[in-house]
Formats: sequence, C-alpha cells, structure tokens
Amino acid sequence: MSIVVVGTVAFDTVETPFGRGEHVLGGSATYFSTAASFFTDVSLVAVVGDDFPEEHVIFLKSRNIDTTGLQRNPGKTFRWSGRYGFDLNEAQTLDTQLNVLMDFQPDLPEAYRDAEYLFLANIDPDLQMNVLEQVRKPKLVACDTMNFWISSKPDALRKVLQKVDIVVINEGEARQITGEANLVKAARQIIALGCKRLVVKRGEYGVLMFTAESVFAAPAYPLEEVFDPTGAGDTFAGGFMGYLANTGDLSEEGLRQAIVFGSVMASYNVEDFSLNRMKRLDYHEIQTRFRSFKGLTNFKDISY
Amino acid sequence: MSIVVVGTVAFDTVETPFGRGEHVLGGSATYFSTAASFFTDVSLVAVVGDDFPEEHVIFLKSRNIDTTGLQRNPGKTFRWSGRYGFDLNEAQTLDTQLNVLMDFQPDLPEAYRDAEYLFLANIDPDLQMNVLEQVRKPKLVACDTMNFWISSKPDALRKVLQKVDIVVINEGEARQITGEANLVKAARQIIALGCKRLVVKRGEYGVLMFTAESVFAAPAYPLEEVFDPTGAGDTFAGGFMGYLANTGDLSEEGLRQAIVFGSVMASYNVEDFSLNRMKRLDYHEIQTRFRSFKGLTNFKDISY
Repeated sequence: MSIVVVGTVAFDTVETPFGRGEHVLGGSATYFSTAASFFTDVSLVAVVGDDFPEEHVIFLKSRNIDTTGLQRNPGKTFRWSGRYGFDLNEAQTLDTQLNVLMDFQPDLPEAYRDAEYLFLANIDPDLQMNVLEQVRKPKLVACDTMNFWISSKPDALRKVLQKVDIVVINEGEARQITGEANLVKAARQIIALGCKRLVVKRGEYGVLMFTAESVFAAPAYPLEEVFDPTGAGDTFAGGFMGYLANTGDLSEEGLRQAIVFGSVMASYNVEDFSLNRMKRLDYHEIQTRFRSFKGLTNFKDISY
Repeated sequence: MSIVVVGTVAFDTVETPFGRGEHVLGGSATYFSTAASFFTDVSLVAVVGDDFPEEHVIFLKSRNIDTTGLQRNPGKTFRWSGRYGFDLNEAQTLDTQLNVLMDFQPDLPEAYRDAEYLFLANIDPDLQMNVLEQVRKPKLVACDTMNFWISSKPDALRKVLQKVDIVVINEGEARQITGEANLVKAARQIIALGCKRLVVKRGEYGVLMFTAESVFAAPAYPLEEVFDPTGAGDTFAGGFMGYLANTGDLSEEGLRQAIVFGSVMASYNVEDFSLNRMKRLDYHEIQTRFRSFKGLTNFKDISY
C-alpha cells in the first residue's frame, strides 16, 4: 500500500565534530520518503523554491517516490542550519529560513486522496490538519511535531493529536506537551488525548512504543561511527511506516517489527551526512541489521 | 555459591521532588548485598562507626547476609547527602563525610577468602585491590568505581580494571575513563585494558553489556513512580552477580539473564526510599517482573 507524507524538503547546512555538510538535501519529508521507499510506494507533499535543483527530484524519482505533490513555488527553498557537539544528541539551530514554506498550501493530487497510510511530518499543525482532511479514508495516520509548534500552536496541535492513530515524537516533546517529567505518565496523557499509540524517540537510547495497555522498548543500534544525526527521527518514521504499509499488519507484533525496521533505517542514516548512506543502502543490509537487533536484545526466558 | 562484596555502609540523607529520607540506611555494599541476597549467600566487607544501630545489622542478618566482615570502628559511620531534581537522573551531592571510612583497612575473615564471586563496589581502588589480593581463587570478579577515583587515582584504578573480569560502571564513567565520547569506542578501550566484559549502566535508559565480540542491550523498566534512584546501580549489580552466583552459568546466555535480573532489582529499588522496597519484596515479584521485561523487549524475527 502506498504512503502519503507531508513535510519539508530543505537545504541543510550541518556541522558536526566530524565534518560539515553545506547546502545538502534535507527536510523531514525527504528523509521520511527515502526511508519508506525501501518498503513501499511513497507520495510526497511538500514545497520547494525555484532554486531547487532537478538532480534532487531525479533522486527522489529514482527511489520510486511520486513527486506529483511536490510544489515548486517562486522563491527560495526552506533552509536549516545547525551544529552538533560531541555527544551528537541535540542540534543547536544556527539559522532557519522558511522562505517558500511560509505560504505553503498543500493541495493533494487527486490520486493521493485515497492513500491508506498518511504521515504528517513535522510542519505547522494547521497544515497537518489541512492535509489530513484531504485524505478520504486513511487506514493509519501518524504525525510528528516539534517544540516550536508545541509552544506556539498548542490548540491546533492538540486537534491533530486527537485525530491521528500514532504520535511519533521525541522524549523532550512528550514532556513538553504534557508538562510531565515522568515519561510513562506523559505517554498515558498523550494517549488519553485520543491517539492509540505513542512512539517516543530517544536518540542513542532507542525508542519506546506505548499503548494504553503495553510498552515496547527497542534500543538504538550501538554505532562506533556516528557522523550526522540529522534526519534520524524522520528516517526512523519512514522505516516504521514503510514496513507497516508493506505488510498491512497493524497487530502489536507487526508494529513491534516496524519499530525495529525504523530503528534499522535510522542507524544507517546517521553513518553519513545528508541522505548519503541511504543512497547506497540495499535491502540485504536492512535485513542483516534487523537480525543484529535481534541478537542485540535477545535473552532467554526463565522457567517458573 | 557465595559472593563477597566490599563497599560502603552509610547513612544517607536524600531529597527528591517526592520526599525526603533523613539518615536512612544506604551505601554501595548495603544495596548490593541486599539485592544479591534474593539469589545467593552474601558476605559483607565494610566499616561502620559506633553510632550504627543494631537494627540495621539485624536487618542484614535477616537477609542471610554474613556480617562477620562488617567492622565496627570508633567514630561515626560514613554519611552521604544528596538531592535529585525532577529528571531523577543524577544526584547533586550536598555533603560527604567519610568518617570511619578514612582509615578503613579491609581484613577478610578466613571463611571469605575462598569466595568464588567477588564484587568490588565503589570504594578507593587501593582498597579494592587489597581485597582482591586477599581472595584466593575467585571464579568471577567484578568492580564498580566513580568519577572521584577516575580523576584522583587513575593508576590505582587502572590496575583494578586490568585484574577484574567484569567492569560495571555508568555511561559518564566509561567516557571519563577513556576520554572518548562514543560509547562503543569507549567500551572497546576499557575491554582492551584487560577485563572480559563491560556493563554500562544508563539509568532510565537501561544497560549495555559489551564483550570484544558482542553487545547486549536491556532497557530499564518504564516506571510511573520513581521515588528515589539512590542505590539503583548497586542494586542492579547485586541482582546481576547474585543471579550469576546462583546459577554458576557464565555463558553469554546466562550473563544476559543476569543483566535482566539486575534490571528487575533496580526497577523495584527506585520505587521507594532507601531499601524500603527491597525489604518488602518477594521472589515471586522478581519472577513476574522478569517476565514483564520479556514482554517489554520481545519482537518477532522476520524470515529471510
């Protein structure tokens, strides 16, 4: 089944202790759709400016990503610039230029409106709702957000959180939304808003997936070389949703496997700048690392 | 098989956002031996002052802990005072009074010297080495340490790290010992010093166990109520070593189960101040939470 994703396509300038990527391809929708494209068909909804080079569109198309919904508007493409310290856990944003994103009005191509899987990547919650309303009967909707929207548009965001099936956010965002320091309590409160599941990303510490009745914990893959964490969260979400759309299995078991596939994709993505690692990734490597996750977490039950 | 542990027995004064424990029983050897006592016989090596109430000794004996090696010296018992903020991740030390600990000379009772399992809890590395040399043919030796010894006695500490089988420290300590920000690289460097395994405690993010060839990741149990993290690391180590001494199974599989039992014990310990939760814990609860860890981490393999 195909996924529709709405989010950003951006030029990123990223500094880490290991190097610098200048004006490289980035954005939440880019990372998400590339990761998801290893598992299923993806249709992209985003906006770029007239400075966006055709080579990037060709790359997306080479991943079989439908770019009919990629608007090209007069002006400059969204730009983000950030820096990571040695711990690589959190980026310090140096500059944000919204540019064409400021007047973005997502208008879904007719073929997108029957999508069964919808991911509302980090973007203005009013736009997320707008897109959600254009999709007729989605089987599964998930969303992300960020601290900026949590503080500046809490009401619009709350409406989105009530409408989606799965919320995929990081630890700090879960705490910020609820004002609750304890993550388990924060999770219960977010689920009580109306979504069925909450996936909490914790960077190098992995992922927790909550429902009202259960918790699943997946570690991050321990890596000796992490070059650039940019896009890890969206890459995770792309692997997660991509696998779900591929199998259609929305059972607890299927969702847990999807969490691990998301973690696999994120673990590869941070090994190089921008989408460079995903550009040379193949499905065999994905399977191999899934198996490594099994070896990483497996322990024998005891008899009672 | 029985375990010998050398470490501290202390009076703690602890403040958390949820309450205050004043002058309560604490210390690395106390937490360790109590946790280990659910699995095996434990012999304690530590020092207290003449202010140490008999009721605490009676408690330790009630857990079948051999206190022959608990010296009672003239002066005051070691005191530690600390405060935790809302995130409960790291204590701010408010006061440390070494008291009788300053002149502590561990002298192992004859019966202790044939111990097969030895845990060198966080204490001066010279004392750790002293104790290690008194045990004739241990089957397994593990040690902990802390930032204070890493910076003040690096050479003495290094000798200990070379002599033990398993190093059990927290994430910050692993980075501090090696000066390496990447945890996987730090782990390799510590193992290269001479130990076979490194167990890295990451508080609410769980535990990683490294060998030269493998990594095992165990999450922490997601808790809605964490009252007091004091002693969680030593309680973890006590469950870990206690289970190993109980089974004698030092295979990778046995060690992974031991990591989970350690995590189970730590998860209970933080539910109340001091050792209060362990005082009312029973083995059935331990088994039940082990099973919950299985449910928390389990995912189905894929076919290839």
